[in-house]
Parts: sequence; structure tokens; C-alpha cells
Amino acid sequence: MDKKIKIGIVGYGNVGKGVELAIEKNSDMKLEAIFTRRDSKTLKTKGLTDNVFNISEAVKFKNNIDVLILCGGSATDLPKQGPYFAGMFNIVDSFDTHAKIPEYFSIIDKEASIIGKVSLIATGWDPGLFSMLRLIEESVLPDGKGYTFWGKGVSQGHSDAVRRLKGVSDARQYTIPIDSALKRVRAGENPEFCTKDKHLRDCYVVAEEGADLERIKKDIVSMPNYFADYVTNITFITKEEMNKNHSKMPHGGLVLRSGNTGVSNKQIIEFSLTLDSNPEFTGSVLAAYARAVYRLYKEGQKGAKTVFDIAPKYLSQKTYSELLKDML
Amino acid sequence: MDKKIKIGIVGYGNVGKGVELAIEKNSDMKLEAIFTRRDSKTLKTKGLTDNVFNISEAVKFKNNIDVLILCGGSATDLPKQGPYFAGMFNIVDSFDTHAKIPEYFSIIDKEASIIGKVSLIATGWDPGLFSMLRLIEESVLPDGKGYTFWGKGVSQGHSDAVRRLKGVSDARQYTIPIDSALKRVRAGENPEFCTKDKHLRDCYVVAEEGADLERIKKDIVSMPNYFADYVTNITFITKEEMNKNHSKMPHGGLVLRSGNTGVSNKQIIEFSLTLDSNPEFTGSVLAAYARAVYRLYKEGQKGAKTVFDIAPKYLSQKTYSELLKDML
Repeated sequence: MDKKIKIGIVGYGNVGKGVELAIEKNSDMKLEAIFTRRDSKTLKTKGLTDNVFNISEAVKFKNNIDVLILCGGSATDLPKQGPYFAGMFNIVDSFDTHAKIPEYFSIIDKEASIIGKVSLIATGWDPGLFSMLRLIEESVLPDGKGYTFWGKGVSQGHSDAVRRLKGVSDARQYTIPIDSALKRVRAGENPEFCTKDKHLRDCYVVAEEGADLERIKKDIVSMPNYFADYVTNITFITKEEMNKNHSKMPHGGLVLRSGNTGVSNKQIIEFSLTLDSNPEFTGSVLAAYARAVYRLYKEGQKGAKTVFDIAPKYLSQKTYSELLKDML
Repeated sequence: MDKKIKIGIVGYGNVGKGVELAIEKNSDMKLEAIFTRRDSKTLKTKGLTDNVFNISEAVKFKNNIDVLILCGGSATDLPKQGPYFAGMFNIVDSFDTHAKIPEYFSIIDKEASIIGKVSLIATGWDPGLFSMLRLIEESVLPDGKGYTFWGKGVSQGHSDAVRRLKGVSDARQYTIPIDSALKRVRAGENPEFCTKDKHLRDCYVVAEEGADLERIKKDIVSMPNYFADYVTNITFITKEEMNKNHSKMPHGGLVLRSGNTGVSNKQIIEFSLTLDSNPEFTGSVLAAYARAVYRLYKEGQKGAKTVFDIAPKYLSQKTYSELLKDML
């Protein structure tokens, strides 16, 4: 490896911190700068770089950063930051509003193409690794059926929804794949599932003193979109139990495909993640794809890309002859 | 999709038949010809093509076949057929002699580059999909440890070794991952294993009448390289039981990586295959990669490639905008 890949981080939330930790694990990368919307002076980073600035200063690093990793959210941050930075830097982001991906892709593609840089959007684990596995599994077993299960893991959106209820002071919601459903897929049954057949929702709730627990339960299980279509377990716990047992952000999931070859041979492909820390794993995936973006840019490529465009070799620190020798 | 991809098959053994079955499942492909070393007149194919010829006739199809899939063995067939056909056709093969891959790659690369065609070598599931997953898992979790387990599945080599013993009329050997070893990996222990810790060998043997069963057992468990380093189970069965219960060719395996992010968060990635038919699945993978080879060739690429060079999008029948919309 020649010189290190200089990475910039935009957004110092959970995912941004995950990227920072990932850079430490990748010896061919160097953290060049962190950009935040908060007061940069108060940011407590790991100290890999002294360059901690307000996001408005990022433009000054245009020629000093090889790849900028955007760690903001898809709802409000990325729709603005993506196109803005794609017109200046090579970028990687984890845009995950599935329905808007085609539109976002074409906006980013235009910006990146004009300046001749590479923007890799919508990576992480889903979208990201899971998307890639869905594609590969379907391509190899066209006569079959694919399934994605999520969890066991914390859903931020569902936890927030419970927290907003009257009488609730804190809540954590775990999405859990239903084991009997997984077993049917693995047995090659190719079942049709409705929503509640695949996942159950497990809630841990800290109630305010004197709150009506039965009413809270009813409010949760009847909440449209979030819980009404699922089997939901609710457990009331103390604030102390919440802090002690539910402070981590585990997640994971599975991408399975059950297919047929020949007359009746069943073939099952399964990819699964079991993650202690969702944001740290996401950060690790973003870092690996930043390496790919850097290399594609060096080869003269430009425009918007997704995981579907990235040949595996671009993700690895190893040289091609090492890959042939050690990994094939 | 415009016109169908015209595929040729060289070698009509188990894998060749698996490719034939896979082509039937891929609506964008057409079987153009089958080439065999046997008497082509006696070959019983599925009838997808009338072009069934001796392998010496293949050269005449130079301009009529988009991708030739070589289904011969790595020991003696591919070292000759690979370079020969790479100098004429776009090819895909499943060369799997790990130690010789770099040398084979460079010979094929030379031939394919001269004529400006694409040769994808060493694909299938291992080498192939497993290699790709090893690379991806390591790239995403550089601080970690990777493991490959094979089975439960029939090992042809080990079955043959038992069959060659005096007093044995038939034998089938299954390689089986040891569950307790898998559990330790999944628990994030990052264990060091020696050979016998990961797999056990399960043999089903039909003995000749009057054969010395104890001597056969001793010959099996003491056989160097094949069994001496493993825990081996041996069950004697009748010819009828063998035909009834052990005629399929199941296989599979797992590629796992257990890694750390941050201070102490464990992250586990797991990819697994559970296959009723090893050769039919291998044939399905070869067919998907034939699609990729065809597209790379159309883009003007040339030379030897491996799974590491193939961006996932090239494997799919779907258009890029379908992939963005449906799969990301």
C-alpha cells in the first residue's frame, strides 16, 4: 500500500462514531477531519484528528480528503448533504429511504458526474450488504423465493413511537424474527407470510410514576403501522434495569433464499448478521466501501454507484495476487 | 432483454448436467451446444439442443457461442481445456486446485487477452461464492477471524478412497461440521482449531460378502491425510440401503467471520449453503457467472477474471433501474 486514504466524516452521531472506530481498524486509512452541525469545540472525539470543524468548513478540505463519509440521517440530512457534497468530494452514504433511492441516485449521479468524482450511495447493511446478497442469491437461484428477516435488534423508530406515549418515560423496542417462520424457510417450504408471521415486537417500557399501565399497553398494541399488525410483548421495567440491560444497540438479520434446481432439489442460501453494535457495524461497512470509492476514482470512474457496482476486490486491503493466493 | 445468451457446455458429467438444468431456469439463456469426450451419439441429454458433438468439433462454434462453460475436472481436464478454449471463446470454469490458481490464472489471462475475450476461472461455491464472502467479511471486519466449514456433504475423494480398500464394494463419505465448534465461533470466542476440531467424517460402507469388517474399519480410520487426523464414524450397510438412502449428492457449508469493532463489540457475519445437489448448485453458479462474462465481453473487457472482479449487477437478469427499485 502506498499512501493512506484520507477520510472525512460528516455528522458525529452513532454512525459517525462507528466510522471513526472503523478507520482505526483499517491500516490503509487515516481520519483527516470531522465535520459537525454542533459546536465543534464541544465535540468529544477519539482524537484521531485535530481537524474538527463546523460542517460549513468542509468545502475548504476539498483537495485534502479522498473520500467523505456522510453519516447523517436519510429523512432530512442526506437529501440536502448528499447532492451538496457529491458536487465537491468522492462520497459514501447510507441513504436508506427505499422508495426514494432511484430519485436520490439520479440527483447524486448528476452532481458527481459533473465534477468527475464517485458517489456511492445507500450502503451499510440494509441497504448495503443485504441488498447485494439478495441480488446474488436471486441470480444464482432464479427459481426460488427470497426472504429478509430483521433482528434481533433495536428499532429506533418503534422505540421512539412508544416513548411519545403519555405516561412513558423511556422505551426500547426489539424486532425479533419468529423462529418457526425461519424454520419453514430453511426447510424449503417457500411459505407466503403476512407481516405478523415473520417478526414479533418486544417492548421494554419505563412508566412514569402512577401511570396507567393497562392504558399504555393498549396504546402500544393498537398503534397503527407500528404495532397493530404484529404480536407485541410488553414488559415494564425500572429506569435502572433499562440502563443496565438495554443500553447497547444490537441488531442483525438474515437474507435467505430457498430455490429449486432440476426437478426437485432444494437449495438454501443464507446470509446472517449478529451484531452487538448496529452503528459500529454500519460504520465498518461504510469504511470498506470508502476504499472501493477511492480506487474507482483513481481508475477514472465517476458518477453515482451502489453496492451493485462494486467488484469485491475493491473492498479489500489485499493486492489482487494476495487475493488469488489466499482467498480464492 | 434483447437476444438470448448462447451457452456451450464442455463435459457432460454431473456439473455439465447441472449447467444444462440451470440454463432452463434462466430465461435469458439458450443452450447452443454440448461437447463431450464420449461418443456424442450415445449421450442422453435433456434435448435443449440438437448440437451434441465431440469436443474436437467445438472450434467450429467459435462464432456461434457467447460463453463456453467448462465442466471438466481440475486434475487433468481443465489444465488442458482451459488454456485451449480461453484462446477461442469467452469461458467460465470451476478450476479448484487452490495451490495452482495463480499459475492457472496467468496462463489463461495470456490466452484470453490475445484474442480479446473474457475467461472467468475458479467459480462455483468454493472456490466461488465462498471466496467472495471470505473477502467481503474480512474487508468489513478487519479485526477478526474467519472460518470456513464444509458439509454436511458427500466428499467424492474420501468416498473413492474407501471404495479402493480391499473388501469394500461401495462407500459414501459425508463431511460434517462439528456443532460445538460452530457454536464457539458464533459465540465470538475466535477459537484456534486443529483439523479434527472442525469436521468429522461419517462413512457408509457396503462390504463384500465375507469381508473382515474390523480390518476395513482399521484401514479407514488409519488412512493418512484422508481419515487419520479426524474422528471417523463407520456404518456398514447393505447395497439396497446405499442405493435408497445415499444416492443424492448433498453438500453445503459455512463461511463465518467473528470480528470486533470499537472496544469490545462482537460482530458475526455468516454465509451458509444447504444443498440437496452439489453439482446442480455449482451449475447454477456457473450459469450466473456466464451472464457476467457475456456482459463484460460486450463492454470490451478481456483477460482472466475471478469472482473478485465481478460487480454484483452483472450477475442479475434485472436491469439496473429494477435493481435500484426492487433490490436495494
